[in-house]
Amino acid sequence: MHGIIYARFPDAKIVDLAHDIPPQWPPEAGFWVSRSYPYFPGGTVHVAIVDPGLGTDRDILLVDYDQHVFVAPDNGLLGRLLDDAVGADVFKLDPGCLDSLGIADPSASFHGRDIFAPIAAELAAGRITPGDVGQATRDWTPAWLDEPELHAGTVTGVVITFDSFGNLITNIDAALLKDFEEPIIVIAGLRLPLLETYSKARPGEYLALVNSFGVIEIARAEGNAANNLGADRGAPVVVTT
Amino acid sequence: MHGIIYARFPDAKIVDLAHDIPPQWPPEAGFWVSRSYPYFPGGTVHVAIVDPGLGTDRDILLVDYDQHVFVAPDNGLLGRLLDDAVGADVFKLDPGCLDSLGIADPSASFHGRDIFAPIAAELAAGRITPGDVGQATRDWTPAWLDEPELHAGTVTGVVITFDSFGNLITNIDAALLKDFEEPIIVIAGLRLPLLETYSKARPGEYLALVNSFGVIEIARAEGNAANNLGADRGAPVVVTT
Amino acid sequence: MHGIIYARFPDAKIVDLAHDIPPQWPPEAGFWVSRSYPYFPGGTVHVAIVDPGLGTDRDILLVDYDQHVFVAPDNGLLGRLLDDAVGADVFKLDPGCLDSLGIADPSASFHGRDIFAPIAAELAAGRITPGDVGQATRDWTPAWLDEPELHAGTVTGVVITFDSFGNLITNIDAALLKDFEEPIIVIAGLRLPLLETYSKARPGEYLALVNSFGVIEIARAEGNAANNLGADRGAPVVVTT
Repeated sequence: MHGIIYARFPDAKIVDLAHDIPPQWPPEAGFWVSRSYPYFPGGTVHVAIVDPGLGTDRDILLVDYDQHVFVAPDNGLLGRLLDDAVGADVFKLDPGCLDSLGIADPSASFHGRDIFAPIAAELAAGRITPGDVGQATRDWTPAWLDEPELHAGTVTGVVITFDSFGNLITNIDAALLKDFEEPIIVIAGLRLPLLETYSKARPGEYLALVNSFGVIEIARAEGNAANNLGADRGAPVVVTT
Repeated sequence: MHGIIYARFPDAKIVDLAHDIPPQWPPEAGFWVSRSYPYFPGGTVHVAIVDPGLGTDRDILLVDYDQHVFVAPDNGLLGRLLDDAVGADVFKLDPGCLDSLGIADPSASFHGRDIFAPIAAELAAGRITPGDVGQATRDWTPAWLDEPELHAGTVTGVVITFDSFGNLITNIDAALLKDFEEPIIVIAGLRLPLLETYSKARPGEYLALVNSFGVIEIARAEGNAANNLGADRGAPVVVTT
Repeated sequence: MHGIIYARFPDAKIVDLAHDIPPQWPPEAGFWVSRSYPYFPGGTVHVAIVDPGLGTDRDILLVDYDQHVFVAPDNGLLGRLLDDAVGADVFKLDPGCLDSLGIADPSASFHGRDIFAPIAAELAAGRITPGDVGQATRDWTPAWLDEPELHAGTVTGVVITFDSFGNLITNIDAALLKDFEEPIIVIAGLRLPLLETYSKARPGEYLALVNSFGVIEIARAEGNAANNLGADRGAPVVVTT
């Protein structure tokens, strides 16, 4: 993909945001796209490919929102982003445009290299816009996970990923907890207080905090929560009092 | 290596094609070089270092072919590429040239940083050509693996690598199967049909297909073939009818 | 971090030197910084973040030395570099400067993105110098490990890291061995000769050599020492005769 992008747009700056996400679960890639894009400069093209529908006739979405462009399979990956993206312009890639972009005979199994990379390069170079190669649409695959909501004094979410330190990252936005005086985070049978930083717990203790992406995270002070807690992606997390 | 390259050629674009290849087996790096180079722009310098002969007096090859330059230890890594590279100009690095390139006293154990990186930077910057620093040769170490051939209605190859999805990638070029009506791919005691895409098999089923690099690949639909099939690099793969 | 750097300094060249270092042990990052920086061009800004004190009021150091700039938490990470850095200018980041750099309300748990990245970008772009944002100091956290010294004919050090080949890299500088006629390297009960290159040992044999970063390394010819020797980071290594 890097080779194709540089061939079409030699001045490209390419960042590999994440490689270690599981191949068949679009929500995790969607989480990282929606939570990290604001840290990139306007004009960035964000390509996210977790593609269990590769080989079927699934569509490809192009989204123009908040001065950024997002390109991904239409499989729910961008659903979370689009839930909140008021004013986003959403397009479905028109396969009839591929020829005019010099994309002839893409492989059946590596659309990243053969379709996403050349389109991203053309978008980043400013030679096309999403509307040039797609049909406007208001119909896309929704996110796979229900967004956590406050209900009867409780918020229920899930572990959506973990980082290289073994911190478990949930999809529970901190804003949902604004009316809790002393929230208790329940995971894997543990009841954890919400602390301000890792250093407020003693080494080896589990804790919860609002992490740097604005969501609830479960950590183990000077340790690895993921390896020791037995809670994986998808594990339920409840906030109560 | 990145530091050395940028120091000599600040405008370089550097792509790390692959890091997770085993250290003592040049054929895998050779496979990726020969199958991926066409996706990079002309003028790219491809450096591939899998170097079991490091510390011996093995040569270093520089190859000028198809508007690309390839630099690698002369240990068979480039053998497969050179088998088909009609018109390639092949050179052996002349150690006497190192001084004039400002490469003094390279370490014994990190030629990547001390020899390959500075030469790659000079080549990419256009300040030298392979012929400026090497002696033309028609004598190089051949590929370690015999190239699969059609023989008595059967093609025999090997698993050469696997990707992050657990798909087993063979060295059997799809062109060898053009006269098979219904090829059967035999691996680890399984007899698999050749399907068009992953989605033509049911979840959990094994299948074979022609992958995006033009070779036969063994996959498990929505699963990981490498983890479950017990077939590693070097495992034999037979195509029959 | 890449996004933030490119947003502030679009012409940045970013190199990820190492990702696989353990999170709570600054000496290893410090080793790589001090041993690898000379291979980068002058003017490079080296950011190293292993930060067990994140969330406490630990300082951030900025060091101007040998035409390079180093930025790291003040936790001993840069201690080894500073031991030898005659003439280095050392500063502690003044948190009062963050506002003027447009760094408002950094997160509590991702200073890499919210503080280190923007400062590195401003330094690399040449818009600030370390002295512009820090207070000069001669008081910093020393290195965690004593530097090996020659004592009664013996040098004692430790394994500080290992590379992807499984070679164990020590903190024993080769210069300490200049008066040894036939040094013997003792590790994990083995007594190893100091050879010139990996190829001087037979396949499967352990050996020691001076590696490409100028320190003693323990390797297994055509094998993986780290996986087989049972010696991890911190394991003692003694050089004797």
